Amino acid sequence: MEYPWNELTLAFSRTSMFPFFDIAHYLVSVMALKQRPGAVATAWNNPLSSWLSAMLHCFGGGILASILLAEPPLKFLTNHTNILLASSIWYIVFFCPRDLVSHGYSHLPIQLLAAGMKEVTRTWKIVGGITQANSYYKNSWIVMIAVGWARGAGGAIVVACEQLLKGDWKPEGDEWLKMSFPSKVTLLGSIVFTFQHTKHLGISKHDLIFLYTIFLVTIKVTMMMTADSAVTLAPFEDTLTRMLFGRQQQFSLNEKKTEPKTSSNGSASSVSKPATEAPGAAKRHAKKED
Amino acid sequence: MEYPWNELTLAFSRTSMFPFFDIAHYLVSVMALKQRPGAVATAWNNPLSSWLSAMLHCFGGGILASILLAEPPLKFLTNHTNILLASSIWYIVFFCPRDLVSHGYSHLPIQLLAAGMKEVTRTWKIVGGITQANSYYKNSWIVMIAVGWARGAGGAIVVACEQLLKGDWKPEGDEWLKMSFPSKVTLLGSIVFTFQHTKHLGISKHDLIFLYTIFLVTIKVTMMMTADSAVTLAPFEDTLTRMLFGRQQQFSLNEKKTEPKTSSNGSASSVSKPATEAPGAAKRHAKKED
Amino acid sequence: MEYPWNELTLAFSRTSMFPFFDIAHYLVSVMALKQRPGAVATAWNNPLSSWLSAMLHCFGGGILASILLAEPPLKFLTNHTNILLASSIWYIVFFCPRDLVSHGYSHLPIQLLAAGMKEVTRTWKIVGGITQANSYYKNSWIVMIAVGWARGAGGAIVVACEQLLKGDWKPEGDEWLKMSFPSKVTLLGSIVFTFQHTKHLGISKHDLIFLYTIFLVTIKVTMMMTADSAVTLAPFEDTLTRMLFGRQQQFSLNEKKTEPKTSSNGSASSVSKPATEAPGAAKRHAKKED
Repeated sequence: MEYPWNELTLAFSRTSMFPFFDIAHYLVSVMALKQRPGAVATAWNNPLSSWLSAMLHCFGGGILASILLAEPPLKFLTNHTNILLASSIWYIVFFCPRDLVSHGYSHLPIQLLAAGMKEVTRTWKIVGGITQANSYYKNSWIVMIAVGWARGAGGAIVVACEQLLKGDWKPEGDEWLKMSFPSKVTLLGSIVFTFQHTKHLGISKHDLIFLYTIFLVTIKVTMMMTADSAVTLAPFEDTLTRMLFGRQQQFSLNEKKTEPKTSSNGSASSVSKPATEAPGAAKRHAKKED
Repeated sequence: MEYPWNELTLAFSRTSMFPFFDIAHYLVSVMALKQRPGAVATAWNNPLSSWLSAMLHCFGGGILASILLAEPPLKFLTNHTNILLASSIWYIVFFCPRDLVSHGYSHLPIQLLAAGMKEVTRTWKIVGGITQANSYYKNSWIVMIAVGWARGAGGAIVVACEQLLKGDWKPEGDEWLKMSFPSKVTLLGSIVFTFQHTKHLGISKHDLIFLYTIFLVTIKVTMMMTADSAVTLAPFEDTLTRMLFGRQQQFSLNEKKTEPKTSSNGSASSVSKPATEAPGAAKRHAKKED
Repeated sequence: MEYPWNELTLAFSRTSMFPFFDIAHYLVSVMALKQRPGAVATAWNNPLSSWLSAMLHCFGGGILASILLAEPPLKFLTNHTNILLASSIWYIVFFCPRDLVSHGYSHLPIQLLAAGMKEVTRTWKIVGGITQANSYYKNSWIVMIAVGWARGAGGAIVVACEQLLKGDWKPEGDEWLKMSFPSKVTLLGSIVFTFQHTKHLGISKHDLIFLYTIFLVTIKVTMMMTADSAVTLAPFEDTLTRMLFGRQQQFSLNEKKTEPKTSSNGSASSVSKPATEAPGAAKRHAKKED
């Protein structure tokens, strides 16, 4: 069984993302842009602005990784083939007669296929980011995790900054408390691939690429079919949190139960701490029961 | 006629921007800063903050181009002569006894002369930006257009970011739909000079510099004298838009006429698209009639 | 007296900031983070976000200096020892059973000691920033002043940007008019060390390091013990302002006295200037009397 498995994973790890997987990624990104309020009007009034937004959606992760490593953010514009492909996808999605592409995309099987292929590109981006970071700082694992994460899921940050500058979005304090699910799985993947790179995991790179991609695609398709989000990682997160911070959590939960009426009395410091921690403990307690 | 023309354009292309054209550019930039509400109060209360703003106004395009090419944004501070010149202009404009400079600048002939000379520096910046980009990515025309554009007209973006950080400006969504006129002509110039650089235009660089500068100065002076803005490019923009997106525009315009009362009925997707596109089409239709 | 003095200053300039002075700096920074509203809740709900904020507080100056010199902003993550130390401080401060560290830090002697040691690290950062800038642009004194200043006091800017992106802070226009006291002394130190570096000051580097550090620590401890802020530099600032801008200030003050009722008459330009300058002059007049 070993040789066919090795052949399979090796062949998979050598697959080129161009053109089909890249097309799927650009399609999902541009459709996400189109579904933003006012995006279609922008495309008609200022096509250049709409095209720039589409490029930020498609290449945002690479741009963020470039900024973090002090490479020119414009570097992605040198890959003329991918720019042409992404621009064609943008043009077809926004300006197709009778909006055929959007109507085709509204069918679930098409969305599942495109989303699955986009998740494959996520693995390639994480690996690419780690390799890129390693070329600058050999074996600096924190930098590798950060750049792999940025390249795999950083597009959301670049797009958020663009919306902030345009005035389309006002950041609320609590949005940053909730990391999105793609962000969490990308961080997990980045950590795993970094430890494989530094030889702390006893698994070959192509095997890990294959397994992680299967994991990503399965999770994504399951979530889309069951319309359920962010359930899967909660037990894992809670276990990790208990190990690192758990005992204090229990203590603060007890504090909340024994001091419900004394919040207006007592010293400011001793009262404010349970009052501040209790909502946090309550939220995490509620999250455990999901 | 050929030899005198060549001599003229060659001599013109070798003109140094320092000191007179640079003085005009710094004067126009600092006067634009002074006319912002609260700028004079800031100059008295916190001269350092006012000086920083003036430097961003004067060197903003070069700073943006440096950021896009991952060069140190502080690089402009190494040119001590230009920094001293710009600082002197700032000092004279804000702290001249009896505000002589502002009163002198309020006369139209002075404004026309300064604005015309500033437009000459715009050409030099575009060419400089393209050369700078070419030194990093040889013959990557998209990068060259972007950097030439940034260097020629990017100061507005840097200044907008500064105002955003200071809280003096809240971005509204629709501001970014309307590209300013300097921005449009700079993009046009950047495209033209890039194609000349990649040998796609059969014209020499010094001839193009001369012709484009004449075009810029004429447009600018005409606009200031007739107090009219952004008329000139509208027919050109409409033709281009018709060629690239025109047919859909007509289609959506028909959609609007045939479905005025049905906007509350029918499926969400088919209704929302004409409703969103119709204002865009209506805006462009209105713009054509200007 | 000369030899013991030289030995003292030389020994002092060769002191390593690691680990005790660095611990003090990280402790003060993380405690400042903890005192922000909602910081403890964030630490429980999203420890990764809290850890990132703590890293920005601890290493913000170096990050800003890296951005200004187009070095990778992630470079600070390569120093694993300091990252581990700062992370340990963060962990202990936020998750110590019974919040022992915060209670210990609430005693004034501990705060004075930590703040004094943090001021020592400020001197090292300014000198490090100037050396860093000199390696890029030899003898460009404006860049050296800027980078020394950024590295010594730039953390506040990085933290403000982070809060802006998170929506925890809306910039008000007048905040930027008032430079904080650490910012002012850091700028002063940066200027002094730059002129020492370019051989314009006839004092050795280790003597200047010693004297400036004594100055910083004395000022900081005095301010904390007397709960008084920003008095010390006001006479110095006023003298400098009088020399550079003083005459106009007097003139505008006279203008205010002679034209109290005519603010609604006369031309817009001549009236608005005294009206705008008078508050500035009045503010500075009031500040002189403090």
